[in-house]
Amino acid sequence: MPNRLNDGALLRLVRGRRSVRRFKSDPVSREAITHILEAGRHAPSGANRQPWRYVVVDDPATKKAIRTACERVEARFHWRAPVDLASWMKARGITPQKPFLEDAPYLIVVFYRMREPYAVPSIWSSIAFMLLQVEEEGLGALTYTPTGARLNAILSVPAQFQLAAILPIGIPVDHQRQDRRPLSETAFLNQFGNPFAE
Amino acid sequence: MPNRLNDGALLRLVRGRRSVRRFKSDPVSREAITHILEAGRHAPSGANRQPWRYVVVDDPATKKAIRTACERVEARFHWRAPVDLASWMKARGITPQKPFLEDAPYLIVVFYRMREPYAVPSIWSSIAFMLLQVEEEGLGALTYTPTGARLNAILSVPAQFQLAAILPIGIPVDHQRQDRRPLSETAFLNQFGNPFAE
Repeated sequence: MPNRLNDGALLRLVRGRRSVRRFKSDPVSREAITHILEAGRHAPSGANRQPWRYVVVDDPATKKAIRTACERVEARFHWRAPVDLASWMKARGITPQKPFLEDAPYLIVVFYRMREPYAVPSIWSSIAFMLLQVEEEGLGALTYTPTGARLNAILSVPAQFQLAAILPIGIPVDHQRQDRRPLSETAFLNQFGNPFAE
Repeated sequence: MPNRLNDGALLRLVRGRRSVRRFKSDPVSREAITHILEAGRHAPSGANRQPWRYVVVDDPATKKAIRTACERVEARFHWRAPVDLASWMKARGITPQKPFLEDAPYLIVVFYRMREPYAVPSIWSSIAFMLLQVEEEGLGALTYTPTGARLNAILSVPAQFQLAAILPIGIPVDHQRQDRRPLSETAFLNQFGNPFAE
């Protein structure tokens, strides 16, 4: 079993992972970013079409342009957010200001080709793989989805590719622990409501 | 770094993972299934709403009912599939018959609550985490998405939950190796088309 991890290692990685919204300005190795991209491009995809394209951004002027474009749509998003989401964001101090887009040493901007089978499931599988690799590298990331932001022009991305998310990546200043609903409320055996006994 | 895996272990897992469409009838431990569900429920989700619900199926009559419901929609799906996808499926011997839905010792049927923020990205992050845990357990799985199949009644799942995928899980008979486009064609630095030098 050459692919087998040490007992429980992946679960510890999964359980320990948290979203990070504040980053140190310390540099991050290019090798770590390569590993993260490697994890992303090996995700499963519909008909193996690999609809993902990643633009890695470390140029300060480009990061600033991305931040400006995102903050422009954020005010509108916050204003329109459903009540539940708005109160969740408020409790976490999530505002239309997105300093992490400049503070993180790297942004991985994730695009997908829209007209591919299962493009959305595929791109989110790729993002999930990258998030675990971020953790494996001892780094932190946020899955930031600036609804409605148009970054294609800033990054010279052809129009058939759609923005899925921006992953700012760096060394965490802090992270926010989120509880999870217990397994007994999420997993059932044979019929919904019938507990899956561990 | 208590969460840190051995050097490169996650990448080996990611690179080694393959879709499996044929399973041995050998049993799989309940503990392995629990680990897989644990990985799934710790995925990130929009506003931490955890829209996932998993129905684990090991009952033969329920598996048979699921297979019947899926094969009913498969004929129509194959008939309507775009040319690219149809030829991809044909080359792999993928037909409307889905014996793996009965052969695999376990099915994890994945549902999500539709009216949650970022429900689709969240559910596919959860599925991606589970696929890696399947590999970690030395097992195989397929991400099977029976377009249009209605399994809520069979599994007593409330109507506000939507089917995302079925993961048949078991010991692989074989798997299909899929090449990946190289990093140089998928990752760029600062501008699309500008190679991300490793």
